[in-house]
Amino acid sequence: MTTSLYDPAKPAGQNDSLTSAVSPDGTPSLGTRYRVPPRSGVAVRVKAGQLLWVENTHGTQVCDFWAFLAADLKQFLSMSHCRTWLQRVMPQIGDPLVSNLRQPLFILEEDTSPGVHDTIMSCCDWPRYQLLGCTEYHDNCADNLRMALQAIGLSPPLIPDPFNLWMNIPITQDGHTSFEPTVSSAGDRVALRAEQDCIAVMSACPQDKNPINGHDAMPTELHFWVEA
Amino acid sequence: MTTSLYDPAKPAGQNDSLTSAVSPDGTPSLGTRYRVPPRSGVAVRVKAGQLLWVENTHGTQVCDFWAFLAADLKQFLSMSHCRTWLQRVMPQIGDPLVSNLRQPLFILEEDTSPGVHDTIMSCCDWPRYQLLGCTEYHDNCADNLRMALQAIGLSPPLIPDPFNLWMNIPITQDGHTSFEPTVSSAGDRVALRAEQDCIAVMSACPQDKNPINGHDAMPTELHFWVEA
Repeated sequence: MTTSLYDPAKPAGQNDSLTSAVSPDGTPSLGTRYRVPPRSGVAVRVKAGQLLWVENTHGTQVCDFWAFLAADLKQFLSMSHCRTWLQRVMPQIGDPLVSNLRQPLFILEEDTSPGVHDTIMSCCDWPRYQLLGCTEYHDNCADNLRMALQAIGLSPPLIPDPFNLWMNIPITQDGHTSFEPTVSSAGDRVALRAEQDCIAVMSACPQDKNPINGHDAMPTELHFWVEA
Repeated sequence: MTTSLYDPAKPAGQNDSLTSAVSPDGTPSLGTRYRVPPRSGVAVRVKAGQLLWVENTHGTQVCDFWAFLAADLKQFLSMSHCRTWLQRVMPQIGDPLVSNLRQPLFILEEDTSPGVHDTIMSCCDWPRYQLLGCTEYHDNCADNLRMALQAIGLSPPLIPDPFNLWMNIPITQDGHTSFEPTVSSAGDRVALRAEQDCIAVMSACPQDKNPINGHDAMPTELHFWVEA
């Protein structure tokens, strides 16, 4: 059988992610509240010491979150390394979020939500929606990551597993999982203190085939801002 | 701060993995029982339809397992995509093991052990042992993967999260994890039916700083063979 070579940076379609950059190179205006359009992604540079706030504007929206070391995109926030470091599947306030080289990239400094986030699921992608029955292009978090980076002149060397903010994936004692609605409220936010100069990417997950974005399965916007 | 660029293919040290290839390109002799030396890794090509057996020779040894599509190493067995596909943190007999493009690479066809394996922890690496206090090079699964591929003329474009055969990582209801000894017995084995032409890599995990390889923390050998 023939197999086409996989290009991790190439999206299968297009959406608002391509035109939603905060600036040409992703450097934000400090204190400015930026919008992640529904079903799209936005990248932002966060310098060491700065605080990145991510807001679940309407309370029901999952944010797929990635971070890369600004100096080397092959060093990225890694959920499996976080779990090994923390000895927990879910980070809590005060926890470092570490890279694939076990270097802390961010500290989870504040979280006004009940703290239910996911680290074990892959981000949605075009193959996922094809498996869910879609025959025409469906927005997806992997492509949002690709386009958000493309919009600031970068391309991902791989698609890391995301930190799925507010995504509610209970794990039963026998290891079963399910996709449940968020338990967060409108305006809930997390604050991530950068330990290194990073590029963070947030995708307003466009999943509308299960209830992770609320019982009405209606993906919506997110907001974020960076403070000194 | 200066940051050196990360080369995913470059090991931090050397061990028997470099001289343990089953053949120059990793093609096995069918039916031949091969040894993974203690603390080392070995790569093997498995063609679609063939059955790969991995044996926990002494019962207490964790095997970090990876698979790559032979035609494109950027397509690899992905634990996060398996979990999303299976809706379980642990594969069971009959389950497909899928790639980062959600393509089944193997079917878990047999498992004579109690079926306790891990999909949520990163493989051990040199930074991990430095964090555990080692000041001199310590064998590690990430380097074993690098060297096992190097021994058959290949190099990994990234270090995927491993399927940790026999690794016992209970997850409590509140999301805490711990490193516990294997619950397998000498001679326990799993059989993986290839759905695609793959390169599988097995590392006899050299972890001797916690009890995952038995209460005596004594890493040992593994064996494997490929059947038509």
